[in-house]
Amino acid sequence: MSDNIAARHDGRGPEDLREMHFERNSFGYALSSVLVRTGKTVVLCSVSVQPGVPKFLKGTQMGWLSAEYSMLPAATHDRSMRDQYRNAPNGRALEIQRLIARALRNCVALDQIGEITLIVDCDVLQADGGTRVAAINGGIVALHEALKILHQRQKVPETAFKRWITAVACGVCQGQKLIDLSYEEDAHASSDCNFIFDEKGHFIEIQSSAEKEPLLPEEFTQLLEKSQVAAALILERQKAVVA
Amino acid sequence: MSDNIAARHDGRGPEDLREMHFERNSFGYALSSVLVRTGKTVVLCSVSVQPGVPKFLKGTQMGWLSAEYSMLPAATHDRSMRDQYRNAPNGRALEIQRLIARALRNCVALDQIGEITLIVDCDVLQADGGTRVAAINGGIVALHEALKILHQRQKVPETAFKRWITAVACGVCQGQKLIDLSYEEDAHASSDCNFIFDEKGHFIEIQSSAEKEPLLPEEFTQLLEKSQVAAALILERQKAVVA
Amino acid sequence: MSDNIAARHDGRGPEDLREMHFERNSFGYALSSVLVRTGKTVVLCSVSVQPGVPKFLKGTQMGWLSAEYSMLPAATHDRSMRDQYRNAPNGRALEIQRLIARALRNCVALDQIGEITLIVDCDVLQADGGTRVAAINGGIVALHEALKILHQRQKVPETAFKRWITAVACGVCQGQKLIDLSYEEDAHASSDCNFIFDEKGHFIEIQSSAEKEPLLPEEFTQLLEKSQVAAALILERQKAVVA
Amino acid sequence: MSDNIAARHDGRGPEDLREMHFERNSFGYALSSVLVRTGKTVVLCSVSVQPGVPKFLKGTQMGWLSAEYSMLPAATHDRSMRDQYRNAPNGRALEIQRLIARALRNCVALDQIGEITLIVDCDVLQADGGTRVAAINGGIVALHEALKILHQRQKVPETAFKRWITAVACGVCQGQKLIDLSYEEDAHASSDCNFIFDEKGHFIEIQSSAEKEPLLPEEFTQLLEKSQVAAALILERQKAVVA
Amino acid sequence: MSDNIAARHDGRGPEDLREMHFERNSFGYALSSVLVRTGKTVVLCSVSVQPGVPKFLKGTQMGWLSAEYSMLPAATHDRSMRDQYRNAPNGRALEIQRLIARALRNCVALDQIGEITLIVDCDVLQADGGTRVAAINGGIVALHEALKILHQRQKVPETAFKRWITAVACGVCQGQKLIDLSYEEDAHASSDCNFIFDEKGHFIEIQSSAEKEPLLPEEFTQLLEKSQVAAALILERQKAVVA
Amino acid sequence: MSDNIAARHDGRGPEDLREMHFERNSFGYALSSVLVRTGKTVVLCSVSVQPGVPKFLKGTQMGWLSAEYSMLPAATHDRSMRDQYRNAPNGRALEIQRLIARALRNCVALDQIGEITLIVDCDVLQADGGTRVAAINGGIVALHEALKILHQRQKVPETAFKRWITAVACGVCQGQKLIDLSYEEDAHASSDCNFIFDEKGHFIEIQSSAEKEPLLPEEFTQLLEKSQVAAALILERQKAVVA
Repeated sequence: MSDNIAARHDGRGPEDLREMHFERNSFGYALSSVLVRTGKTVVLCSVSVQPGVPKFLKGTQMGWLSAEYSMLPAATHDRSMRDQYRNAPNGRALEIQRLIARALRNCVALDQIGEITLIVDCDVLQADGGTRVAAINGGIVALHEALKILHQRQKVPETAFKRWITAVACGVCQGQKLIDLSYEEDAHASSDCNFIFDEKGHFIEIQSSAEKEPLLPEEFTQLLEKSQVAAALILERQKAVVA
Repeated sequence: MSDNIAARHDGRGPEDLREMHFERNSFGYALSSVLVRTGKTVVLCSVSVQPGVPKFLKGTQMGWLSAEYSMLPAATHDRSMRDQYRNAPNGRALEIQRLIARALRNCVALDQIGEITLIVDCDVLQADGGTRVAAINGGIVALHEALKILHQRQKVPETAFKRWITAVACGVCQGQKLIDLSYEEDAHASSDCNFIFDEKGHFIEIQSSAEKEPLLPEEFTQLLEKSQVAAALILERQKAVVA
Repeated sequence: MSDNIAARHDGRGPEDLREMHFERNSFGYALSSVLVRTGKTVVLCSVSVQPGVPKFLKGTQMGWLSAEYSMLPAATHDRSMRDQYRNAPNGRALEIQRLIARALRNCVALDQIGEITLIVDCDVLQADGGTRVAAINGGIVALHEALKILHQRQKVPETAFKRWITAVACGVCQGQKLIDLSYEEDAHASSDCNFIFDEKGHFIEIQSSAEKEPLLPEEFTQLLEKSQVAAALILERQKAVVA
Repeated sequence: MSDNIAARHDGRGPEDLREMHFERNSFGYALSSVLVRTGKTVVLCSVSVQPGVPKFLKGTQMGWLSAEYSMLPAATHDRSMRDQYRNAPNGRALEIQRLIARALRNCVALDQIGEITLIVDCDVLQADGGTRVAAINGGIVALHEALKILHQRQKVPETAFKRWITAVACGVCQGQKLIDLSYEEDAHASSDCNFIFDEKGHFIEIQSSAEKEPLLPEEFTQLLEKSQVAAALILERQKAVVA
Repeated sequence: MSDNIAARHDGRGPEDLREMHFERNSFGYALSSVLVRTGKTVVLCSVSVQPGVPKFLKGTQMGWLSAEYSMLPAATHDRSMRDQYRNAPNGRALEIQRLIARALRNCVALDQIGEITLIVDCDVLQADGGTRVAAINGGIVALHEALKILHQRQKVPETAFKRWITAVACGVCQGQKLIDLSYEEDAHASSDCNFIFDEKGHFIEIQSSAEKEPLLPEEFTQLLEKSQVAAALILERQKAVVA
Repeated sequence: MSDNIAARHDGRGPEDLREMHFERNSFGYALSSVLVRTGKTVVLCSVSVQPGVPKFLKGTQMGWLSAEYSMLPAATHDRSMRDQYRNAPNGRALEIQRLIARALRNCVALDQIGEITLIVDCDVLQADGGTRVAAINGGIVALHEALKILHQRQKVPETAFKRWITAVACGVCQGQKLIDLSYEEDAHASSDCNFIFDEKGHFIEIQSSAEKEPLLPEEFTQLLEKSQVAAALILERQKAVVA
């Protein structure tokens, strides 16, 4: 297939995922944390629990889940400035943490956990593309464990964890449909997509952006199909961590 | 078809767009502006031009396009706080203005306009759902006119305007696949999608989020097809404005 | 009279007001709003009501009125930066909104409305001089209507509305005493004044600033007299809107 | 005269100024500074000079003058919060420093001093009413001295100092027209005025605000006349300091 | 002794303190204030009391003490920018006010004063080196008086004031061990130390920093011994103020 | 000796250091980084280089070194808020990063490296006491390596690295003089000290604070002596990392 002709810079085929590794409770004192590695990308996902909910939920007996996404300054090839020293808000980080929170809120029965807030901190220690999907893939594992602990402490019912989700990044790069782009590939992609699936392959979130060229519907379909295959592989590994 | 059984609160069928109206240069002194109305939603899209580009483009002879999205406090049913008085950055507004800018940058030959920045201000005067797609649909019209004026002033070539784009909001609401949701419908949607197409129906941007329930692939496909039909209608009206 | 020799750039005589127009509830979901036009100046004045009062009034059974004044970026000939992106607070806007609030608080029986806050949002859609007086002239109309609605809802007594006020801008421009200056005239004025009168012609606020030359007492007196005449005309139109 | 019947809480007659004292170079290393005392009110006015001008003046060969007004936390009976710890900008301080700067700019031939900025820092050490007029009355003395020093250093011509100005606060308090209100009197005033005169008694600035009741034109006229008398006394003392 | 050979720029011997002067209640309306002068350095230390404590102490019946340190813009030879106009927090000021608060908290029986907060404002009116030790030396005097007043008002027991403290700045400058450095000396010091002692000569705080060269242990010992002598002199003067 | 009677909660003797481990280039793309572990405390120290220097050094041919210290939210037992979401600056972090930078600047020949800035990012991944000394101990190793790389690239001379430094935390806890306190011990210490030594045992920085009780001079001497012993052990390990 023509897609496969050019080898990727790290020798992968177009549909190959980078090596993925989940390590539990490596750093910090969160209720549960996962250090997720996807190739050279490393993200620490930590789930903490705090009493209380945002104002708009007070008195509703509902819980909430929020997320924060940040990169260590040296996580990128060019050192990035810390958010507290910027003149303007970090729009990219805010966009990503809104995505992470929106996706993970689909996984918690917020009406069963009482007025608590689950906070998912996603701190990028090393960035080589795909940090947001890594954050989601690690975040759901940490969330699963956090809810298990809360259940063991009889704070939430077993059904509080509603579903697994899996995120896949892909894109079109010099005409090739590639899965799990490195930073280098991402920088040259004409369009990129992030899919988040539940266990049945239904859509939790789709984000597709033309960066250089519009994406053809058939390209989108191919990316989607390849992502579904990749998602199944990732889901297996996620579940293996908590087995 | 069962989808069509329940009438929408304003009497529309599931695939019907709300009344849409574009008015040029209603308010302000921008190079070009469009007041776009979609049902009760009203957005003022103003395109200004400033010399210079962001730091990362200096010396490249490339131009840039940025966008700002904001709502007047009284645009919403409950008065919203102005951004300058908030304790935290307005993540929703930043996410939307990043989307608007990303989409509209696809429409300008940035390498042909020299080191200038086009700023697209999208100010929501009244919000009844679909403000981000209204901003894009009005913004591209204002951008088309702004580039025409700059071309007449011999500042940019005629080819600076690369393509028309059209945005459609849709979602699943109580099982129905609906196009162009009102605020009320949006609040009850189990999932919502925003599609941005170019003139050929290729994808500029897809954003699909499960709010209450995962979206089934076949639902996505139906929403996409209905959105393509709607986009063709909107494109016609956009072009009529500048004819 | 020598004052009248030079025609103004829009053909008006020195004492002539620009065309003034009040339109109710044009945009947004405030309790009451007025879109006021004075020549090319356009301001949207929206009155919202919120439960509660600032800390210093808690427990006093008194209400409060605050105002916010802002310009859309494209409202001015040169695009202005949004307040949330500035490095320093917008002193001009703060000064103006303090003036608007101070003046309008004279119009409400704060001791009769209970612990609520009336917020008057003044958003300038197009700025051609005189935005602060336009905001006050439109704001009092919107406030009158808001209090009427609150009275109909039996939230406040009929006497909550204490008085009408009317604002007039004037100045000395190349020796001429001019009423209702356009932006162009204002930029060349040697001094400018803003008068706010109640219905009896008593003073609610006087703000007079020498910009280039000190103002002579007799000039001040002439400006005051001409402003009183203009105020009577404006008051008629304000009352006609709510008749 | 009925105005004079009630004695003021410090024994003054309605038109009497509080004791006023100017002390040069008491604290700090400014080019010139004046510690001004008006009754219990104490303000330190310091004039510094910095190379360069704001952006809008670059390349015009014009200079600029700006002012900053701040109160020490313990200057008021109830400790006030420092500006850097507030959630919102200090509108009152910004309004006052804009007034001080606007007034003092009338006193400098900005077109003769080259591209430098004069900064007038007005720091209130003790506040008992009338801090803004004290700041202006002390500020003009410090400015006079600063320009003299710059002239001696051959940096500016002797004509750089254009005129003396004098500020007077007054108001209506329980029906009496009072000059130079203490904090206590100011808190009970139904309206208050600040006049700034040049040496000929022409107006540099008038600010009159109804706080509780509209001000009658004849009351305004009486306040103005009394203020003119007071201004002449203050001017004498100002000039005596630099004699 | 070789240390003494070179005279200091103001004629002092290496161990000589500059003239020190404490003046009570010079400016402002704090519960108690002290204007402390050390040579040309002038700091106003004001102690205010506010109901309530920081969140982490609520409900503990403990009180708190915080400090704020700030310099007037013209207090330094080159005008310094006010904190509210800086782009970044003023790290130096924060470091100093943390030191002041930490030291003074040792002097109050926080468990005896109930849930109140003592705020010590240290405002530098003129800076010629040693502002932080001046702030502490003046601050403890103001604190002593504030607690005496609170005791007289039967708000706190007599034992609320736990101990006197005394601060001494010293350093190595061109090989000499100097006490109480002026700004000029401080700028040329190879290392500097701040000691805070209690009445028995025990350590409340030691801060020693190598600026140009590491400090030898024997140099440290000599500085310490000289500082102990100086501290005894200062303590005498502090106590004399309140006698 | 009585000091040794009570065992520490982790079984250490009073003078025992916790296990210390240095790992190079674990995470991120800095010029050089060190992950330092001291017991359960984990800090990532990354050294980046940027062209240019702060304003006050421009044109001097001198380089600069700055540091930033931050904790991941989940690094502490109770999740801490990110700095960008706080209402007030994080005084503790600013104090610590000023200490780190001040100490490390003693180690670089700033006059030999040209106008570049070395930035030392110290990010705490897990906090169990002693994070600032860990940051310094790891930071100097990373700095040593960074300068070696810059030397190899012929950007700086070999003499740019001036000296090794070693930091030791200690304190008095229930009467015992303890080295290398855990968080638990630190929370109960009556006073604590941080010493930074150069290779000869000279002082780079001493910070000693009474937290509950003044520190006796003889206690200080004992802490100093024990710290010197500990510093020698740490220095050995530091040098071993780069051997």
